[in-house]
Amino acid sequence: MRAARLHEYGKPLRIDDVPAPRPGPGQVVVRVAGAGFCHSDLHVIDGELRILPRLPLTLGHENAGFVAAVGAGVRSVREGDAVAVFGGWGCGRCRHCTTGVEQLCDRPEWVGLSSWDGGYAELLLVPAERHLVKLSTLAPREAAPLTDAALTPYRAIRKALPALAPDDTALVIGLGGLGQYGLKLLRLLGGCRVIAVDVAPDKRETARALGADSVLDGRDPELLKKVLDLTRGLGVGAALDFVGSDATLATAIGATRTHGKVVQVGLAGGTARMKALESVRFEASFEVSLWGTVQELREVVALVESGRLAPIATEYVPLERIDEVYARLKAGRVEGRIVVTP
Amino acid sequence: MRAARLHEYGKPLRIDDVPAPRPGPGQVVVRVAGAGFCHSDLHVIDGELRILPRLPLTLGHENAGFVAAVGAGVRSVREGDAVAVFGGWGCGRCRHCTTGVEQLCDRPEWVGLSSWDGGYAELLLVPAERHLVKLSTLAPREAAPLTDAALTPYRAIRKALPALAPDDTALVIGLGGLGQYGLKLLRLLGGCRVIAVDVAPDKRETARALGADSVLDGRDPELLKKVLDLTRGLGVGAALDFVGSDATLATAIGATRTHGKVVQVGLAGGTARMKALESVRFEASFEVSLWGTVQELREVVALVESGRLAPIATEYVPLERIDEVYARLKAGRVEGRIVVTP
Amino acid sequence: MRAARLHEYGKPLRIDDVPAPRPGPGQVVVRVAGAGFCHSDLHVIDGELRILPRLPLTLGHENAGFVAAVGAGVRSVREGDAVAVFGGWGCGRCRHCTTGVEQLCDRPEWVGLSSWDGGYAELLLVPAERHLVKLSTLAPREAAPLTDAALTPYRAIRKALPALAPDDTALVIGLGGLGQYGLKLLRLLGGCRVIAVDVAPDKRETARALGADSVLDGRDPELLKKVLDLTRGLGVGAALDFVGSDATLATAIGATRTHGKVVQVGLAGGTARMKALESVRFEASFEVSLWGTVQELREVVALVESGRLAPIATEYVPLERIDEVYARLKAGRVEGRIVVTP
Amino acid sequence: MRAARLHEYGKPLRIDDVPAPRPGPGQVVVRVAGAGFCHSDLHVIDGELRILPRLPLTLGHENAGFVAAVGAGVRSVREGDAVAVFGGWGCGRCRHCTTGVEQLCDRPEWVGLSSWDGGYAELLLVPAERHLVKLSTLAPREAAPLTDAALTPYRAIRKALPALAPDDTALVIGLGGLGQYGLKLLRLLGGCRVIAVDVAPDKRETARALGADSVLDGRDPELLKKVLDLTRGLGVGAALDFVGSDATLATAIGATRTHGKVVQVGLAGGTARMKALESVRFEASFEVSLWGTVQELREVVALVESGRLAPIATEYVPLERIDEVYARLKAGRVEGRIVVTP
Repeated sequence: MRAARLHEYGKPLRIDDVPAPRPGPGQVVVRVAGAGFCHSDLHVIDGELRILPRLPLTLGHENAGFVAAVGAGVRSVREGDAVAVFGGWGCGRCRHCTTGVEQLCDRPEWVGLSSWDGGYAELLLVPAERHLVKLSTLAPREAAPLTDAALTPYRAIRKALPALAPDDTALVIGLGGLGQYGLKLLRLLGGCRVIAVDVAPDKRETARALGADSVLDGRDPELLKKVLDLTRGLGVGAALDFVGSDATLATAIGATRTHGKVVQVGLAGGTARMKALESVRFEASFEVSLWGTVQELREVVALVESGRLAPIATEYVPLERIDEVYARLKAGRVEGRIVVTP
Repeated sequence: MRAARLHEYGKPLRIDDVPAPRPGPGQVVVRVAGAGFCHSDLHVIDGELRILPRLPLTLGHENAGFVAAVGAGVRSVREGDAVAVFGGWGCGRCRHCTTGVEQLCDRPEWVGLSSWDGGYAELLLVPAERHLVKLSTLAPREAAPLTDAALTPYRAIRKALPALAPDDTALVIGLGGLGQYGLKLLRLLGGCRVIAVDVAPDKRETARALGADSVLDGRDPELLKKVLDLTRGLGVGAALDFVGSDATLATAIGATRTHGKVVQVGLAGGTARMKALESVRFEASFEVSLWGTVQELREVVALVESGRLAPIATEYVPLERIDEVYARLKAGRVEGRIVVTP
Repeated sequence: MRAARLHEYGKPLRIDDVPAPRPGPGQVVVRVAGAGFCHSDLHVIDGELRILPRLPLTLGHENAGFVAAVGAGVRSVREGDAVAVFGGWGCGRCRHCTTGVEQLCDRPEWVGLSSWDGGYAELLLVPAERHLVKLSTLAPREAAPLTDAALTPYRAIRKALPALAPDDTALVIGLGGLGQYGLKLLRLLGGCRVIAVDVAPDKRETARALGADSVLDGRDPELLKKVLDLTRGLGVGAALDFVGSDATLATAIGATRTHGKVVQVGLAGGTARMKALESVRFEASFEVSLWGTVQELREVVALVESGRLAPIATEYVPLERIDEVYARLKAGRVEGRIVVTP
Repeated sequence: MRAARLHEYGKPLRIDDVPAPRPGPGQVVVRVAGAGFCHSDLHVIDGELRILPRLPLTLGHENAGFVAAVGAGVRSVREGDAVAVFGGWGCGRCRHCTTGVEQLCDRPEWVGLSSWDGGYAELLLVPAERHLVKLSTLAPREAAPLTDAALTPYRAIRKALPALAPDDTALVIGLGGLGQYGLKLLRLLGGCRVIAVDVAPDKRETARALGADSVLDGRDPELLKKVLDLTRGLGVGAALDFVGSDATLATAIGATRTHGKVVQVGLAGGTARMKALESVRFEASFEVSLWGTVQELREVVALVESGRLAPIATEYVPLERIDEVYARLKAGRVEGRIVVTP
């Protein structure tokens, strides 16, 4: 079968002909209908994140498709089932895996980012049926980006919601794909007001369209002051930073009220600096939220299948043109999400 | 000033001329713009709930109005401010009062239900400014029913939400005023599906209009089976029983899934019966939720003032006609809520 | 190998010679060093709990031993490792299993209580390595009863602790094996006072020795009044009912304060009756706690291995004399716990 | 009456004769039996923390004594009652004050650190009876340091406990007065192992005596590596930093496991730096814990009165010699806590 594999950091992916996987006991092979191309793949391909245990490796961690074959003992899915693939695979045995936060496993085996090949291929070997979320009405290729682009903000927002009562305000920094899902989910599950911040005018336009109560320019030198003014000086209940640079983290921390929450979403490279009585208010907490759990993925899929959450704009591109996807994402010329269709 | 007072259980309220209250240190007098007439007032007047420490007493615990006078040391409000009055007054010193659940005080001093006179009067003496929630845009008489009819379901739903993920289902039994607010709030703050149950066809119609996903007849002998069928036999994440009879409690308990929550809303007279391996699933919990906190009232007011929560139908009736209100409520001839306007 | 199997409800177990199990992929065979004989086995043998999907079946759900063989792909244990066996097996894929509460699985596959044979046998087939907790210093036969007799109260107490601040009181009803562990764990992890209740004088003596602050006779007609007097009329923060009869549940509910917790431990046959304003105080909750999770078992083992929690008295009896164990347990002639050593 | 007042930053306190306070409505005057001299007083006196709204001001925020007079309407205490004084006074009306975290009030009115005079005086005016915790058996001057030196670590440890299961490890950095209480409370309420770190040999000795499982030298260049080695490389469940310098915060953050908690206790001047994938593990959170609540003070007092928590070494010095206390604390020549007895 065909698979887009990384052979060397800094070099383009290569479309190879590789043996088709066959499911061992308890395993499932999925025919990939869509594999979302994620920003973090850029960092891996470019060699900024040299976390892969072997090369060549097939990338792709936002996957969905149809069950193609099941191994011995598999009971919950059968051939032909439409499924989204939870990607934060772990060892299955440790404290994190057995308490429901498998994506936090100390020995992560994330699909397409560990020794397990990912979804930029015709077939994907899934090591355990517990990673599959059955789809009822949603087409798998539409579901693919939910497994990260929607799941990651969903988990972050669930962490923030206890600090976001209806008389509170949320701050969302960065309105790319994840930030847009973040804003949508806040509108759906939180009763609070929302301030959205982005440096790009079109993203600010999108934020307005998605229902942000106030929209500010990330380049405004008065940004922090304006956020505080919008909350009568008290600060926001929670700040969700989807950018994660030194500067955005400083804004997020400075804008958060006493007893509030600062949540950095994803693994960007900035440093959060917190100094009592100066940069951070009384008992405001900071945390980096990481991806999501398979149960949270079920919840995201349910929101979309019930019609309450509309997916963001998605474009579909055949596996053969994956280089082009890389180039466009690198150049920032992507509206919403691109899904590779092998 | 005029006040509608209960002189004897089982007798109608009497409109008396009583001395106007004057605020002591830290106290506030509110000119009542509206006082919601609550179902529990019926039980008190009829003598079914003989909880009043003295008679005559002015009833009315759903109040809002304008600040008429402030006592020494009051800082957060001034004459003319529009305010909703939190009614679950407590001693202010005990464990419950100092941890934010003053309505649960072991020595309750609830307005209009303790030695403190209530809001069926021109003026209302509020013993501490912490009980007041300032209104920005909402007219006080519109805000009055929020202090109980919306606050009580808000607290109950907040308790249930952790068991109501978007892939879950909520069961709402009883679509009177509180149940309608409950359904609205679930639609607003929860991502789950909602099954609504009522014995009355018009209430079922209202439930459909408010967005219930399924609506069932409370008299249907197959009711429990139908609820379970709608959840593939697993049961609902949370059941909110706004009726609280033996029968509705049995349905609520029987319909709730493993690890789910049964919440009885308010103080109705049924008995919840829970027997392991029979009437209740593994680790499903039961609780009677009681009224709400002043912070929760701020949150309810914020939801209404931001336009996200529309108040249910409300009718305004002058204090002089309070007997008529009693009669109509008794006869069940009330759509939504009646507010007395002294 | 030898295995004590139930062939017919109401008949004694029979020691059969059965084929030794061999581990499939991902599975582990454990040489049983000890299998605790649990009270619930009595109810199963006697046919009061007819929950077994097939007969004959090897009972025994409190197991520990040494790894005898591992199937393909098993990585976390190897032959000879000393292990305790978590017994609340589930499907491994559903909401409960993937969020860390596998013992609550809607399709339970509990060891020795489902189609899986239990530990009253020389060898035990464990279907997944995630069910094993490695032992460092503890002898497996000593660890066996921890997997239920200590784990079940541990989970129950963890649920109760948020309602048991140091200025609060806990009520423990029933000082059998589980109740004794409950009392020990409260002393270890809670700062609160403890009232212990039992009908048997020797159990009350044990409670005193284990550090209960007050000890009351379960047959005392003034029992509830005495508990309330010990808490200045306010009630206890949490009541843990290890008996679960109608009468003990009524005491537990009646004794619990506003905002407190009533936890029934295990699956006894009483009915909890809760009626607002009568039998239950404001916002006191009720729940039946069920067994525990594998992570909680790790925690219990850690408490024992660190020397902080001393196991209760344990007696060891060879598999051949399992009938005698049944008879003594039935007659109530057991101090602490009996472990069968195959 | 005599009061030790700060007239100018950087100058010693001056013992002045000032008018005795008289209680207004709802207020209480306490005859001070003891007022703990806290390290933060040093920073205020030296002018490093210029937070006082007026000078001269009587310092002293760790107070206990006997009720000397009560204002109109006070019901819960009477003349002669022994009381500890909760010091984190707030406005009493805002979100923080009405949800039980008054010490976090956005307009703090902390005793001895705001416009309210503190306890380095014969009499202390307490603005509301809700700030008083009645003592049953404890002598007030012994109770004084509990109101901060024990309360502050108590709150911090309560925040950390959910991340400190019995199979986890806690890291305590800094074994001064607060750190010693922290260690004692971890031993009392947590089942986890404890690693204690201090730069001073005698403090390390104290840590051993108080039951730390491992004790490390804060100056050890291998410190972080050693902590990680003690946790098989995984890191501690929670790190409690009682020092709060850049260096100790870096150790605390670096030592904390995935999903763990870093809690800085108190308002020291270091900066916490958290960078995803580098200095901080997946979903480890950071927070500065601040003082405690009046309910938490009740819980601390209950722990001491029940004999479960022994106060740390305390020395009593008359008000006249308060300068000497300042000098000794400044020179670091204090074992445990010094209480001024006016």
